[in-house]
Amino acid sequence: MKCRVCREPAIIDIRRHNANFCADHFLRLCRDQTQKAIDEFAMIERGERCLVAVSGGKDSLAVWDILIELGYEADGLYLGLGIGEYSDESGAFARAFAAERGLRLIEIDLPTHYGYDIPRGAKAARRAPCSACGLSKRHLFDQAAIDGGYDVVVTGHNLDDEAAVLFGNVLRWQTDYLGRQLPVLPARDGFPRKVKPLVRLGEREMAAYCVVRGIDYIVEECPMAVGNKHLGYKEALNAIEAQSPGSKHSFYFEFLAKASAHFRPEAEGDQADLVACERCGAPTTNEVCAFCRLVERAGGTPPEAGHAVAHADGSVAVHLGGTRRAPAPAAPVELPTGSQVGSQVGSQVEAEVPA
Amino acid sequence: MKCRVCREPAIIDIRRHNANFCADHFLRLCRDQTQKAIDEFAMIERGERCLVAVSGGKDSLAVWDILIELGYEADGLYLGLGIGEYSDESGAFARAFAAERGLRLIEIDLPTHYGYDIPRGAKAARRAPCSACGLSKRHLFDQAAIDGGYDVVVTGHNLDDEAAVLFGNVLRWQTDYLGRQLPVLPARDGFPRKVKPLVRLGEREMAAYCVVRGIDYIVEECPMAVGNKHLGYKEALNAIEAQSPGSKHSFYFEFLAKASAHFRPEAEGDQADLVACERCGAPTTNEVCAFCRLVERAGGTPPEAGHAVAHADGSVAVHLGGTRRAPAPAAPVELPTGSQVGSQVGSQVEAEVPA
Repeated sequence: MKCRVCREPAIIDIRRHNANFCADHFLRLCRDQTQKAIDEFAMIERGERCLVAVSGGKDSLAVWDILIELGYEADGLYLGLGIGEYSDESGAFARAFAAERGLRLIEIDLPTHYGYDIPRGAKAARRAPCSACGLSKRHLFDQAAIDGGYDVVVTGHNLDDEAAVLFGNVLRWQTDYLGRQLPVLPARDGFPRKVKPLVRLGEREMAAYCVVRGIDYIVEECPMAVGNKHLGYKEALNAIEAQSPGSKHSFYFEFLAKASAHFRPEAEGDQADLVACERCGAPTTNEVCAFCRLVERAGGTPPEAGHAVAHADGSVAVHLGGTRRAPAPAAPVELPTGSQVGSQVGSQVEAEVPA
Repeated sequence: MKCRVCREPAIIDIRRHNANFCADHFLRLCRDQTQKAIDEFAMIERGERCLVAVSGGKDSLAVWDILIELGYEADGLYLGLGIGEYSDESGAFARAFAAERGLRLIEIDLPTHYGYDIPRGAKAARRAPCSACGLSKRHLFDQAAIDGGYDVVVTGHNLDDEAAVLFGNVLRWQTDYLGRQLPVLPARDGFPRKVKPLVRLGEREMAAYCVVRGIDYIVEECPMAVGNKHLGYKEALNAIEAQSPGSKHSFYFEFLAKASAHFRPEAEGDQADLVACERCGAPTTNEVCAFCRLVERAGGTPPEAGHAVAHADGSVAVHLGGTRRAPAPAAPVELPTGSQVGSQVGSQVEAEVPA
């Protein structure tokens, strides 16, 4: 097995490319594919400030690493979800990654800053854990980006993630979600731009990337996600991919090229008038946004305006809150392209930070 | 486990209905669901003449049986594909079914009447066997229906078949096929109406139906189909269905309700001007239709006009050919709704007779 580029011994085969790569050329492939996605979908301009949603898993640490390697300006945001040991360990991986590289890591801890955690909060709010988690992440990443003056929120969703979400959306033909499942969601009043630079790379490649780069990450799946439908969709697609390499890629990219626009009207139909949440100011279609309702039902305490905690390792924990404001009800509303609208959350896993 | 209707001991559970049924009420369910599909999609009017595409498998024999039970007028058409023992046995099951019930079975035998069989023909024509088979079936069923004055061609595609075809079509986002994947394809000049009355019933139910009704059918999969993609799609969807009963039903019926119409323009775009095939007269977009090209490349011999062979069991073998005529090139062409257009065949399994 030889590297396609240099004919030296290869360390990985990528069946959908029908090619093998040595370590150096594999890393180059990952960077090239990321740059290609960024350019193809106009995700990030040079000089823009990126906020990377960091979970401590392979994808989010890899995308942060690649963005830095490609010369982009990128800070990280880690959200402590209060999921027992899983959160303790994933936070430690995120902090170690940032500290070793002298990168800035913002931290928000749900139990400390909002008075609830995902397991108890989801139960109290009668939501599936992945649903409560996704809602919390979307809200807090958006808010942190707006408050911190970032141009764009970056998530580590890879091709496997996007293909599985797409599969879930077509299984129920959720045409509004289909109309919004894009690798870039443009900024709108009150919402930052969101991008997924890893859509051209698979889960297996991202694990290999971290191994080759010496990035330690949390390997375990989140214990709350075990057995969820999303993982079932991934398994089904893996079986298809094994039968026909390249199936996931064509499923996702042919969707973008040939079908996505068909569902735009349904996505636009969801863009009801946005108002500012009475409590936190975030854009919402209700008086109180879905996040504030979740916090309330979970018995949490939405905090006052932000404070920051400096860590010994040079990373920074910032508590954010209350500074975002949605447009007044009468303000013109742009093309709706995201699963960003208050309680109109996407499929429950659509905007989560991948493992 | 008790019957939902009468509380007597049940013989089958249907998880997507969250219900169990005794033999009698299970048969009633199958008939009711078939009638519901017929009515919902205006498949067959009372008094119309149906031609059932019979393979000798559970689905085609079941749909024929159910149509007769429901009071429809239905003859059968069996196509001998020349696939060794599989064809010998499947033909015997079809003949026995018809003879026991005094039903009329038309037979066309590819080796006898057209001088080729699927295994050698596909190889010679450099087509996948399932592709050559599907093309042959579509052409000969259409022609037999037109020549025999039938109002509608009935196939035994069940929910599992349709969901798997849909999955294959969305995996590649073949928007033209998506725009034509309907349970009813209206008649157009030169093409008969085609309907799939079993779309509300699953594969497992059809096997159970045959067992309960004492219908002997060929259990083996076609040996040419083993390992094909279509079966892989079925397996993947079975895994999803096991996780979430009802997934196949919602995948297919939500598609029809919410997404199908979006792809109509692509399906219409495929409806190029139809002309009559120089050789057989069937409607085609080329000078010579895809079937006649297949026969030629397979080394076969398109026959002269039809002759019929009466079997001892009362069934009838009819050889059909050369009487169908497409509209002149300038004739107006109706809304295109089928995977019926000459070489513009649907996905390779789209219009096959199911097992």
